[in-house]
Amino acid sequence: MITIALDAMGGDHAPRAEVEGAVLAARELDVRILLVGIEETIKQELGRHAHRGLPLQIVGAADVVSMSDSPSHAFRRKKDSSLHVAARLVRDGQASALVSAGNTGAVMTVARFVIGMLSSVDRPALAWAFPNMKDKVSVILDVGANVDSKPEHLEQFAVMGEIYYRAIWGTKRPRVGLLSIGEEETKGNELTRETAARLRQSSLLFVGNVEGRDMFRGNVDVIVCDGFIGNIALKLSEGLAEHIGGMLKKAIKGSIASQLGYALSRRAFNEFRKRTDYSEYGGAPLLGVRGITVIGHGRSNPNAIKNAIRVAAELCRSGINEKIEQELYASTVAARG
Amino acid sequence: MITIALDAMGGDHAPRAEVEGAVLAARELDVRILLVGIEETIKQELGRHAHRGLPLQIVGAADVVSMSDSPSHAFRRKKDSSLHVAARLVRDGQASALVSAGNTGAVMTVARFVIGMLSSVDRPALAWAFPNMKDKVSVILDVGANVDSKPEHLEQFAVMGEIYYRAIWGTKRPRVGLLSIGEEETKGNELTRETAARLRQSSLLFVGNVEGRDMFRGNVDVIVCDGFIGNIALKLSEGLAEHIGGMLKKAIKGSIASQLGYALSRRAFNEFRKRTDYSEYGGAPLLGVRGITVIGHGRSNPNAIKNAIRVAAELCRSGINEKIEQELYASTVAARG
Repeated sequence: MITIALDAMGGDHAPRAEVEGAVLAARELDVRILLVGIEETIKQELGRHAHRGLPLQIVGAADVVSMSDSPSHAFRRKKDSSLHVAARLVRDGQASALVSAGNTGAVMTVARFVIGMLSSVDRPALAWAFPNMKDKVSVILDVGANVDSKPEHLEQFAVMGEIYYRAIWGTKRPRVGLLSIGEEETKGNELTRETAARLRQSSLLFVGNVEGRDMFRGNVDVIVCDGFIGNIALKLSEGLAEHIGGMLKKAIKGSIASQLGYALSRRAFNEFRKRTDYSEYGGAPLLGVRGITVIGHGRSNPNAIKNAIRVAAELCRSGINEKIEQELYASTVAARG
Repeated sequence: MITIALDAMGGDHAPRAEVEGAVLAARELDVRILLVGIEETIKQELGRHAHRGLPLQIVGAADVVSMSDSPSHAFRRKKDSSLHVAARLVRDGQASALVSAGNTGAVMTVARFVIGMLSSVDRPALAWAFPNMKDKVSVILDVGANVDSKPEHLEQFAVMGEIYYRAIWGTKRPRVGLLSIGEEETKGNELTRETAARLRQSSLLFVGNVEGRDMFRGNVDVIVCDGFIGNIALKLSEGLAEHIGGMLKKAIKGSIASQLGYALSRRAFNEFRKRTDYSEYGGAPLLGVRGITVIGHGRSNPNAIKNAIRVAAELCRSGINEKIEQELYASTVAARG
């Protein structure tokens, strides 16, 4: 049985959402969960659920990383935090994966430096999965682990993203694209032009440049970009979806007829909401780190926590890190001729 | 009366949408319009409207730039195109502004090299106005004129964008922000950190970094970024809005009750659509070019063309280019001590 170390104190609704999500996961999935955090608080939350016989165990941690802590402060000064303790459980082999919905920057830094990097990877990449227009899932990476990436880093992100896509969605040859500002090869900036040249030489199924407006079209499975642009793309998508939802709500409240109409359409709206609900998609893995790390959204509800645990367990079972080491090693050897 | 040179052959629905938009503008606004393009075709389209006595004039051009022409091909090989002829009318002082809904890359290149740049500006910037959550408008620039910008370029974009915002929306001290990946000063990449340092020293009302998710919040009037990221942000917003609309439609078609509900809510949906309709916002000015250039969306309908002409006329009246020359000259002198 796979063991997951869950940072029970991360996230806006911690530890309530974390504990309930862990109970759901322990019931539905074949996983053992270490709930890491302030012992008394977690015990109290656990008491709200029927959990007898479930593979859940509390691991005490005296401190908590807050959302306002800087990554370096969290890394250097909060060694007794639930995040550090959970990361050490993975480093020391007592758990196979770390799951946290806490401060993203802090989780990335602690995972990178406490658990350590895979030997063939220069920089870790955060991968975000989202529903596309074809009712499938696309993945974009890096969405925030790195800025000022070099072409060789983006090439590594492409290899890692492709392996992640195969592991979770089972596609044999995922299509890999490069986020840029035109479909033609000559378009883009220095970074994307050099990266495209490398990807064309690689063994990946590289389909070329992907424009911003095609990101959601579903013509590509894995989209590669620098973390600066990926993070803006991710945040912008969240902000715009919220903005559109707000405008729609306002418009509907405008008249009795449309309020009645809304009541009749409620099932449709709920369906719509579910399809755009990030919590179904289970958090973002930080690829390139030894052991598995999955970062949940700060606003994670119990369902989101459960799905983040599910993704972490699937990644463990898929042997993703062994595959990343093999394929990046092979491509390095190939590049050397 | 201000004279506008309209590229009547640009845009997906040209010349029909262009001619109808020009007729609307000539009726409603205090402008004279030169309809540039294939004479016979434009005459025919004009015949569909009551236009006697309106300040409209046809200027013949033998060739047309297509959406698939590369910017350099359009610039070098299509000198008899409606785009070139319209640009020369501005260069030679026979019109004050160029309006085109054609091939964006071609319009930018022809405007830049045929009309020429303002002497104090290194690179032109394309500015996109969009409705924000506060029912106001925010502007983002550059959305595609330049890639691999340097900090001094972004600083010039900030000055030009701020003057544009004052000219069209009348705000005395528009708030200027920098698109980045965190609100803290230390966040971002090399480019944004150096640019932020410059903007803090400037006389602009600089409010700091703006994250992707805050782009639509309306806490900032002018958002500055490199053209690579700005173009992706623009295209991504268009693509996502379309994606969300599509999902909503699909959800609504799912049941009779929700279809009935939709019928009752139709006014609300129409209101919603109007608020997200780019055609109300009148095209994107290419700032930094001598004379005024406004680029419409390829899919421009007559209303969008009319609004692009309105924005072009307002920019002419505001004396935006004189202000840009003065303020950039002043800031250069200040920088030299």
